[in-house]
Amino acid sequence: MGLHLHILGCHSATPKTNAAPSAQILEMDGHMFLIDCGEGTQVALRRNKIKFARIKQIFISHLHGDHYFGLFGLIATFNLLGRTEPLDIFGPKGLKDIVLMSLKLGESWTKFPLRFHELSQSQSVLIYEDQTVSVRTLPLDHRVYTNGFLFEQKPRLRPLNAQAAHELKVPSAYFNKAKQGGWVQDELGNPIDFKAITFDPPPSISYAYCSDTAYYPPLADMIQGVTLLYHESTFLSQHEELCGPTKHSTARQAAEIALKAQAKFLLLGHYSGRYKSLEDFKIEASAVFPQVTLARENTAFSLAHGGVSELTEI
Amino acid sequence: MGLHLHILGCHSATPKTNAAPSAQILEMDGHMFLIDCGEGTQVALRRNKIKFARIKQIFISHLHGDHYFGLFGLIATFNLLGRTEPLDIFGPKGLKDIVLMSLKLGESWTKFPLRFHELSQSQSVLIYEDQTVSVRTLPLDHRVYTNGFLFEQKPRLRPLNAQAAHELKVPSAYFNKAKQGGWVQDELGNPIDFKAITFDPPPSISYAYCSDTAYYPPLADMIQGVTLLYHESTFLSQHEELCGPTKHSTARQAAEIALKAQAKFLLLGHYSGRYKSLEDFKIEASAVFPQVTLARENTAFSLAHGGVSELTEI
Repeated sequence: MGLHLHILGCHSATPKTNAAPSAQILEMDGHMFLIDCGEGTQVALRRNKIKFARIKQIFISHLHGDHYFGLFGLIATFNLLGRTEPLDIFGPKGLKDIVLMSLKLGESWTKFPLRFHELSQSQSVLIYEDQTVSVRTLPLDHRVYTNGFLFEQKPRLRPLNAQAAHELKVPSAYFNKAKQGGWVQDELGNPIDFKAITFDPPPSISYAYCSDTAYYPPLADMIQGVTLLYHESTFLSQHEELCGPTKHSTARQAAEIALKAQAKFLLLGHYSGRYKSLEDFKIEASAVFPQVTLARENTAFSLAHGGVSELTEI
Repeated sequence: MGLHLHILGCHSATPKTNAAPSAQILEMDGHMFLIDCGEGTQVALRRNKIKFARIKQIFISHLHGDHYFGLFGLIATFNLLGRTEPLDIFGPKGLKDIVLMSLKLGESWTKFPLRFHELSQSQSVLIYEDQTVSVRTLPLDHRVYTNGFLFEQKPRLRPLNAQAAHELKVPSAYFNKAKQGGWVQDELGNPIDFKAITFDPPPSISYAYCSDTAYYPPLADMIQGVTLLYHESTFLSQHEELCGPTKHSTARQAAEIALKAQAKFLLLGHYSGRYKSLEDFKIEASAVFPQVTLARENTAFSLAHGGVSELTEI
């Protein structure tokens, strides 16, 4: 399995009829991670036909409203829909307090467990892990405490080469061990290299969500070799002087991070509302990095397992 | 001048692509009052071409999310748009705390004065007044502390009957006094009834916003003779048993309040999402009260001064 990325909102600051604030759904190995949750996210989820019940983890980058003001309503709706499954919310310290205050003021406690994982570390830390996927924070450089998130598939099992296993007389009891990359034995007890009876697995896919941030070169080390990088590009270089006070990036700077990180694909987003056309973002970034795609609301992208194929809009 | 009422959202609970939560703009004598502010209100304001800067007072009925979760984002947008004018917010105690917490967490204090008027009274009180309009709370019967709001035009000046004033030889210095309903004199000092040289003014218009509430007959006394009543009708009578635990009303109950209050027009809203067609709400209410109109998103209604004309969709 590869990944599907649904863009629910990819504009900065004020929502408009045709420009929604940050929110994405990342489908990876059966998970449906919600990343950021700007105002209007629950309506965007419906528009994109995402089943609410499939969302079990929410990741909030920072506490500027365009990245989390939709969370209050989404939690209320989960409750109205009769949710009983726990919901895990990862986000900066303070998020728990304000969500709980909204529940208290409305006398509307959830009937499902709401588990907050408050973040305050300044280093990249592992915050979620299961059998197939891990998630790490990516501390960014913004006006308030902000994390990006790195979603990584764990190494896949090695597919069995059944014919080779038969010819080398490896008992089937060893197959699982070989798939996991362990040395095995033949019927006579002779050691057999697992590579001799398995194929190389397809490389794992990784996705880095990085918004909002100023140009921050240490990020490139944290996401080295990432398959797909979503990096904010609030401005074009012609307005680079705005990046300092606002702690945002230009499209060119986003591309420089992608280049340094040796990413396979770069997805741009978090566009300022001052630009009429988004094509200039792509032109600017493409001068630095070859594989640039523009995020747009209510589109989805697909990346096949291995990440060697194209990033495809679906 | 009469009033214009813009319906930004008139459905209950969870926002959907075609069903927005509560929010209205009431235009009355040059004011542009925002009443409730569910998630997505700022986008609805843009869609309805309401100028943000004209909103100076916001009235929040209660702290269930579908009535105020859009307020955080709207305040953030006012700030981004460079607002300097004060904003007055009237709402239940607790609203100030959560709005200020959102500003603190985002390190995004407003550059304009944000003036909270926290409500906790259980009686109807005057909360806003200027030369032309007054606003009173209407304590309602809901699961949490809730107010409706009664917006009333103050009595108009009496139009001058210039011909009568000339014939009765009333000096022009008295005209303003007569317009305000005071006795005046002719050139010789004889007393003249103001009614003799003025016409009756058109009756003032009033608007009562009542959502959310269970069937609550004392409300009818508080809004006696109101021109236009917006009353929630979450359910149809076939689901009246749900009104008890949820503290909502049926369309029939809304009509009974309108009848008892001797309202001129009844506007229904806050529909539950369970009903496919809204027409049944109108049919049910019309059996009790003659002048029933259904609120619908992104429509506006107009009521001419005097309130004797039809409620017109514009």
